[in-house]
Amino acid sequence: MLRSPHVTPLGDSFHVYDTTLRDGAQREGISYSVTDKLAVARLLDSLGVGFIEGGWPGALPKDTEFFARVAAGEVALKHAQLVAFGSTRRAGVKVTEDPQVKALLDSQAPVVTLVAKSDRRHVERALRTDVAENCAMVRDTVRHLVEEGRRVFLDAEHFFDGYAFDPDTSLRVLESAVEGGADVVVLCDTNGGQLPLGLSETVADVIARTGFRVGIHCQDDTSCAVANTIAAVQAGATHVQCTANGYGERAGNADLFAVVGNLVTKLGLQVLPHESLAELTRVSHALAEIANIAPDTHQAYVGSSAFAHKAGLHASAIKVDPELYNHIDPDTVGNDMRVLVTEMAGRASLELKGRELGIDLTRRPEALTNVVRKVKELEAGGWSFEAADASLELLLKAELSELDELPFRLESYRVVLDHRPDGAVVSEATVKVHASGERVIATAEGNGPVHALDAALRKALLPHLSWLDAVKLNDYKVRILAGTRSTSAEHGTDAVTRVLVESTDGEQEWTTVGVHGNIVEASWLALCDALAHKAMRVSPSRA
Amino acid sequence: MLRSPHVTPLGDSFHVYDTTLRDGAQREGISYSVTDKLAVARLLDSLGVGFIEGGWPGALPKDTEFFARVAAGEVALKHAQLVAFGSTRRAGVKVTEDPQVKALLDSQAPVVTLVAKSDRRHVERALRTDVAENCAMVRDTVRHLVEEGRRVFLDAEHFFDGYAFDPDTSLRVLESAVEGGADVVVLCDTNGGQLPLGLSETVADVIARTGFRVGIHCQDDTSCAVANTIAAVQAGATHVQCTANGYGERAGNADLFAVVGNLVTKLGLQVLPHESLAELTRVSHALAEIANIAPDTHQAYVGSSAFAHKAGLHASAIKVDPELYNHIDPDTVGNDMRVLVTEMAGRASLELKGRELGIDLTRRPEALTNVVRKVKELEAGGWSFEAADASLELLLKAELSELDELPFRLESYRVVLDHRPDGAVVSEATVKVHASGERVIATAEGNGPVHALDAALRKALLPHLSWLDAVKLNDYKVRILAGTRSTSAEHGTDAVTRVLVESTDGEQEWTTVGVHGNIVEASWLALCDALAHKAMRVSPSRA
Repeated sequence: MLRSPHVTPLGDSFHVYDTTLRDGAQREGISYSVTDKLAVARLLDSLGVGFIEGGWPGALPKDTEFFARVAAGEVALKHAQLVAFGSTRRAGVKVTEDPQVKALLDSQAPVVTLVAKSDRRHVERALRTDVAENCAMVRDTVRHLVEEGRRVFLDAEHFFDGYAFDPDTSLRVLESAVEGGADVVVLCDTNGGQLPLGLSETVADVIARTGFRVGIHCQDDTSCAVANTIAAVQAGATHVQCTANGYGERAGNADLFAVVGNLVTKLGLQVLPHESLAELTRVSHALAEIANIAPDTHQAYVGSSAFAHKAGLHASAIKVDPELYNHIDPDTVGNDMRVLVTEMAGRASLELKGRELGIDLTRRPEALTNVVRKVKELEAGGWSFEAADASLELLLKAELSELDELPFRLESYRVVLDHRPDGAVVSEATVKVHASGERVIATAEGNGPVHALDAALRKALLPHLSWLDAVKLNDYKVRILAGTRSTSAEHGTDAVTRVLVESTDGEQEWTTVGVHGNIVEASWLALCDALAHKAMRVSPSRA
Repeated sequence: MLRSPHVTPLGDSFHVYDTTLRDGAQREGISYSVTDKLAVARLLDSLGVGFIEGGWPGALPKDTEFFARVAAGEVALKHAQLVAFGSTRRAGVKVTEDPQVKALLDSQAPVVTLVAKSDRRHVERALRTDVAENCAMVRDTVRHLVEEGRRVFLDAEHFFDGYAFDPDTSLRVLESAVEGGADVVVLCDTNGGQLPLGLSETVADVIARTGFRVGIHCQDDTSCAVANTIAAVQAGATHVQCTANGYGERAGNADLFAVVGNLVTKLGLQVLPHESLAELTRVSHALAEIANIAPDTHQAYVGSSAFAHKAGLHASAIKVDPELYNHIDPDTVGNDMRVLVTEMAGRASLELKGRELGIDLTRRPEALTNVVRKVKELEAGGWSFEAADASLELLLKAELSELDELPFRLESYRVVLDHRPDGAVVSEATVKVHASGERVIATAEGNGPVHALDAALRKALLPHLSWLDAVKLNDYKVRILAGTRSTSAEHGTDAVTRVLVESTDGEQEWTTVGVHGNIVEASWLALCDALAHKAMRVSPSRA
């Protein structure tokens, strides 16, 4: 059986309990492999959460395998205790003869969280038994597991609705668990319909009436899961169940990162090892990667936009006093402040942006004026540098005459797209470029026009640019600018197209932008900027 | 000047105030055109919000144009009053001589929301003036606008931090506004650092000390913007500022749909016209479309997963007793319950969709099974019929054998794109089609490959389809499906592309979808569906 010491500053007095691997996996679109689950457990453990609920052994084969592989030593948990989730014995069955309960013991997890009905209507209508038998099921199962050396928590399902409907029945379920030896009763807002004020009254009431150690488990159906969790803590709960990035069924669960961020930075509760807080952003993104879900750019604390400022109004003051405009120092949670350059911003935000890119514009007021004018002109034409730092950097350096020439010059390109009579669709591109004093012609095919063009350009330049092979396209985004519709209402296809290209050389990532009436030309401009930016890095400017 | 009656059940006693067009536009990645802004205003008005903040006239040219076009009658607001957002007069300047204040009047908006510093540190460090002058700026500007016949609200920026630091200064700012004639003082959590308990105490305290009508404006940096807004209402606020889908700077603002959902279904406050609640989901998705942001599938109330249950623990119980498992009836907010992994839900929603399109599928269970399978296959490959009813209708009718043949058949097409040595970019398309028993070849140029293809197809078919001339493309949207990256990580440009085409014949509008690895072929598929749909309408099916 696995045992590991508590190392959070608050020890066992406050539990950060993660259920990404069980409740998080119920999110539409998530399907963890066992390998994924092991990786998630390692990351959560590295963060220092107290408990990792790994799944439901016996009910789901993948979960059974996960527990077996952890028990076999594939994950050495340093901080967290592993938790198996399961149900009480079935009605009318002896606990020692219930295979589902046996599977919980077989998982070798040192902690078991049992889910039980705590709303009388669910007991009668879904479970089709009575309150007394439901309580016996809870008491028997907890006692059996405790006698087998497990620590047991009770998840009281639909607690808040049940307590509002018939508080005595709901309390009897909690009492049965504690009689059996459970040491935390977790009040679950299973429907997610609670609001903080009412929820915190119920939590305080239950604590006052029972004296039990109370935990909280919130779903996000009112968009209040994080707030409800915090409200429960303020009402006396000392155990919070969360999921990474709020993954979970329906609208999701309380987001681990926002809950921890709030508990530490707002309530001053050191619920994680001190050094973990600065890891929140990295771990959040890594867990999104494993779940194969694009990180939520606007997520509190850890989103890439969480400390991004766009308003010109704010930008000038941010320059002077960043702490006036951020609720916390972004470094605290491993995030960055960014200033977005848009039509809304002026000199101040471009100056700040320059500083971020290592370009001092304060000494060059006339260049700054030119860049501001240029950016405004381009943005009026549909360009956007907000997400395309690399293109903005090229523009700034060009304006400061700190840019070397591009390592190639385009003469022309041609893209031919055929939908053949047999139904096959083929794209072919030919580029004619000048590089290292030579004229090069290259032709390549691709899945689409832009892919073909990219392939042909690479073919032409590879012999001339040693670094090109390492540069790959990570992502490609297209936006048709509807605003231009008004000027050419006749044809939707005749609008201006903005393309964003994210590139990587295996070490760094950078984003460039291209805008044109023709989507292929817009893509070409973004591709050229991507290569120009890499070239600039390879052979630094002459400044 | 525009005036419109209040029609919400609560009249003027409770304000739902939307700032999507101002604060929402600060979200990283949003860039509304004036046309977009007009469309957003129409949708918000149709929902029945009380106030629509349109932007900052004078500060942003697009916003100035937006107000001018509303004043010129391009949007006839039925429910909402239009609000211009702006700043107080500058320090040391007479209010009548401040061009920014003049721009607010010139906007002709009947309501003006003025933003003012209410944190002494911001007054001194960012504004570089003193508290007395700051209060005079507020009082003078409000009074001037009120004398000119405007209703004025005050946005007290950074109020909560300011009140914690120096409550008297913060209150003096509110008092100055009310002395000038403001009738709502809006407490803004500008940094977004508040939690519900502390925030509601401050709101209650301010109301007790001043007796003023208080509004609330929350940012989502602690993931509590919705909860904070609700907590403020429970503490006495009667004016809530929100944005559609929570769009806004950094982590965003309080989501209009969750706030309204909570106020109506949880607190019983009828803050919107009764019939509007069932429109929340539709309007939320339409506003995401205009912002060109993929709808958040897990958004509370309106997300496509908000009432989706993964089959498991209680699948059969959900079928029998759905109200036990959802916090509200999804129909209330125009959403659907879905049970994932079972085929039942797919059938039910397609049956419903069929009914919506006038196709009775209940009598055709085997056809329904085929359609469900087909839709699932296509959606797994990146197709989406959520916004493309016309394509779905074609698919349903084809499956029911109720579809006439297309009025044309493609043999092949070729698109050639030239970036010439002189820099000119030219697109040319040739189509070979069969129509009315003839083989037709036509070539046309266009601004881009899709435009050229559309032009060539029209040229070929115009002599054969009398109705074609009336059919125009209204809108064209492209989404690169990032999910497919994992299978072809080498090239971002090699992903699957989904194209949505909205067409009109001057009377009706319809949307079609095409998906392919090649953007031009995806567009072709959507264009063909657009014409097929019109053809079906012109010569109705033989059913």
